[in-house]
Order: sequence, then C-alpha cells, then structure tokens
Amino acid sequence: VAELRVVPVEGLPEIAEGDDLGALIADHAQLEDGDVVVVSQKAVSKAEGRVVHLDDFEPSEQALELAAHHDPRQLEVILREAARIVRARPPLVIAETRHGFVCASAGVDASNAPEADTLVLLPLDPDASAESIRRRLRERAGCEVGVIVSDSFGRPWRTGIVDVAIGVAGLRPLLDLRGSHDPNGYELRATVTAVADEIASAAELVRGKTRRIPAAVVRGLAVAGEGSAGELVMPRERDMFT
Amino acid sequence: VAELRVVPVEGLPEIAEGDDLGALIADHAQLEDGDVVVVSQKAVSKAEGRVVHLDDFEPSEQALELAAHHDPRQLEVILREAARIVRARPPLVIAETRHGFVCASAGVDASNAPEADTLVLLPLDPDASAESIRRRLRERAGCEVGVIVSDSFGRPWRTGIVDVAIGVAGLRPLLDLRGSHDPNGYELRATVTAVADEIASAAELVRGKTRRIPAAVVRGLAVAGEGSAGELVMPRERDMFT
Repeated sequence: VAELRVVPVEGLPEIAEGDDLGALIADHAQLEDGDVVVVSQKAVSKAEGRVVHLDDFEPSEQALELAAHHDPRQLEVILREAARIVRARPPLVIAETRHGFVCASAGVDASNAPEADTLVLLPLDPDASAESIRRRLRERAGCEVGVIVSDSFGRPWRTGIVDVAIGVAGLRPLLDLRGSHDPNGYELRATVTAVADEIASAAELVRGKTRRIPAAVVRGLAVAGEGSAGELVMPRERDMFT
Repeated sequence: VAELRVVPVEGLPEIAEGDDLGALIADHAQLEDGDVVVVSQKAVSKAEGRVVHLDDFEPSEQALELAAHHDPRQLEVILREAARIVRARPPLVIAETRHGFVCASAGVDASNAPEADTLVLLPLDPDASAESIRRRLRERAGCEVGVIVSDSFGRPWRTGIVDVAIGVAGLRPLLDLRGSHDPNGYELRATVTAVADEIASAAELVRGKTRRIPAAVVRGLAVAGEGSAGELVMPRERDMFT
C-alpha cells in the first residue's frame, strides 16, 4: 500500500425508506476500481425501512423488568432483535444479534432516527445490503468496488466506541498472514488482521456522528474478492477472550 | 474533516536499542502541523530496549503449569508482565498489563523480535514514549504533531486483530459527543468515540505486518491538545461488556 485516502461522500440527502443508496452514492462520489465504499448502518437501515415506532410495541414481562425506570417498549424492541442476552444491567443490555454480532442494545438505536419515538434496527442481512449497493455502484459508476456496512460498537476493557464492519461485499474482511514470515524469518502464527473493521474505523474518522455524512470512500487498498461479515464473528468455542 | 490521508513512513532501518525513533521518523517523513504520527509498539519497545532473552528466565510453578507443552520460560515472561490474568487456556493467556490494557500474552510477543529466543515487551510507559517522539519531531521537523503508539489487539466476539492506541501524546484519544445533537435534534447521550484507536487502525492498513513499516502519518484531522492512553482504559466498575 503506497498511501490511503479516506474521502467523505458529501451532499447526500437525509436517507428515507426506499431510497436507492447505491445510486445516490454513485451520483455524489468519484469512484475508482478497487475503492472501498463504507456506508453507515443507519443509512442502510433507513433505506431498507428497518425503522419501528415505539407505539407499536407492547412490552413483555422481561422488557418491563429490564427497563427499570426507562421506556419498556424500547427494551421490548431490543429483546425482539436479540438472539441472546450477553449482559444486562438494566436498562442497559448487551446482546448477540441474529447475525452473531455482540453489541449494545442488539444494535437498536434512537440516535439519527427519522423521527421522535422511532428506533432504527440493524439491516436483516447486512452482507446482502452491501452486495446490493455494490451492484448498483457497478451499474451506475461502472466501477468494481468493495462495500462495507459499518456500525459503531463498544467493546470490553476499553472506553469509547469504534466503527466495525457488519456487512461486507467485494472484499475479504480478514487478512490472513499465518504461514508468512516477518523480516527476520519468524513465522507469524497468530496474525489474522480484521482489515474490514480497520477500514470501517478509518472511514468513521471522516464521517463523524453529528454531521450527515453516511458514506466515505477508502482508496489505495485495491480490494477484490468476495467475503462476508460472518467471517468477523468469532465462533464461541474458539473465543479466547470470553 | 475534508479528507484523510494515511501515508506510510518508508525507508526506516530496522530499529535497535538506543535508536532515536523521533529523529529517524523526522528524516523519513514530510510532516505538517496537526498530523498524527502512528508508531508501532514493536519499534518503540525495541528502541527502548524492552527486549528479553528466554535464557534469562527461570520458570515458576505457575509458568510450568500454564505452558502445557510449550516453552515455560515464555509463560514466565508473560506472568511477570501481567498485573492480572483475565483468561487462561494453556498455553494461551489473556492478561491485564500494568498499564491496564487487556490483551493476549500481556503484550509479550515473539514476532518481529530482534533475534531468536528473544521476546519484545510493551514499553514501560507508552504515553511517555509517545511524548518523547513528539518532542523530537518538534525539534527536528519543527512541527506540532500528535503521536500514537499502536499495538495489535484481539478482542472478544470478533475474529482477527485490530490496531489500537496504547500510548498517546498531543491529541485527545476520545471524542466526546455527549450533549451534542444529531441533525434531527436527538441528543447523543452515549457517543464517545475512541478516535485514537480508529487512527491506529487506519495507520495499520498501510503499515502491514510483514513489511518493515513501523510508522505512518495520518493527515487531515488537525489534532491538538493533550491526552493519555489511560483514558482508553475502561474502569472495571463502569465496564458494561464484562
């Protein structure tokens, strides 16, 4: 890699259900083959209509318990999105989503939601979302790019959130260096780098949270190949850290 | 942020004890005020002589137990670097370092070590290492930059390693957006971004592991201020994820 450029895609409108995100990005970015287009989960979810209204949820017993003094309807939405509760300190819940991601509130979020009392859910199939955007960018911009759907996750032991990849198309999310050697001939046995997560983090630096920049282009990695964000999910029996 | 550039610092020699890393980087990079210079922990540790030889370690009982069929001397080094063992699946150990970082082998690493049977330890005070490089860059390049000492950490629930900041000087590692509002007026209550970790990850993308690129320059964030990587360590009582 000679040099990396991370360029925000400026001028995109507020994204609403039914919007053609791929076409919108193609119209607002100068793309090249091998670029990675990083799109925020929030924009993808809104375009796909993954927004719910609190009034439509009747809290269960468990939601009422977990809500403490907060809105039990929000806890009900989180419980419905969760495949497994990993930690619960009411009203805060860390959950595993149906995709296998472990994150706060099963990815359910009220910030940057379209209107009051609505919540944005994760895309049903973020890899498919990424692939759909990739296909539209190929059609509209004539470019073969990688696409990452990116979300901000907290993590154990460290403060702050960082962006990671929850959907991937047109690139390999892991760079596996096992079997290769360092400059001194030492075999790198444990070195598998989560490049898709690092790309998502790099893109977050130009997207920010308070500005309406749902996408960024990362240039210089010349990505290719196929992959799935599922590769970034650690099988429980192999997880050294839990 | 208009655009981010991530530029590898090419042409640096293999780093050895006593090397003036700041001066070497100043000689091999074109720096500007507000840049972030990201330096690998491995390079910093080698320059500071944080390298030990396995022959100098007599394994304790605990090291012999944890080593399983592996070298108990390496486990002895890990135990001496650890303030607390977080998980142990012999011979793999996740430990909290004296700095508060939770990572594999308490940061002890054999890859990219100077010679066979040596191990590289984390710097004693990575913030001080970063500050020292920053001061040298100010003297030699006349630039006011931020410096991050970066290391590759595994994490729970996700495969692969990503680079994070273990030492910081001349920038604030966390961007605290609490109290600010999204474009729709919703207050961002939980949004503290670990920008130093995201910068470390962005830099890793151009540094790689098998090439001898111990440093990269991240331009476009116009960093300033003071900070410590200690801010990235989550106090145990506040950690929602463990």
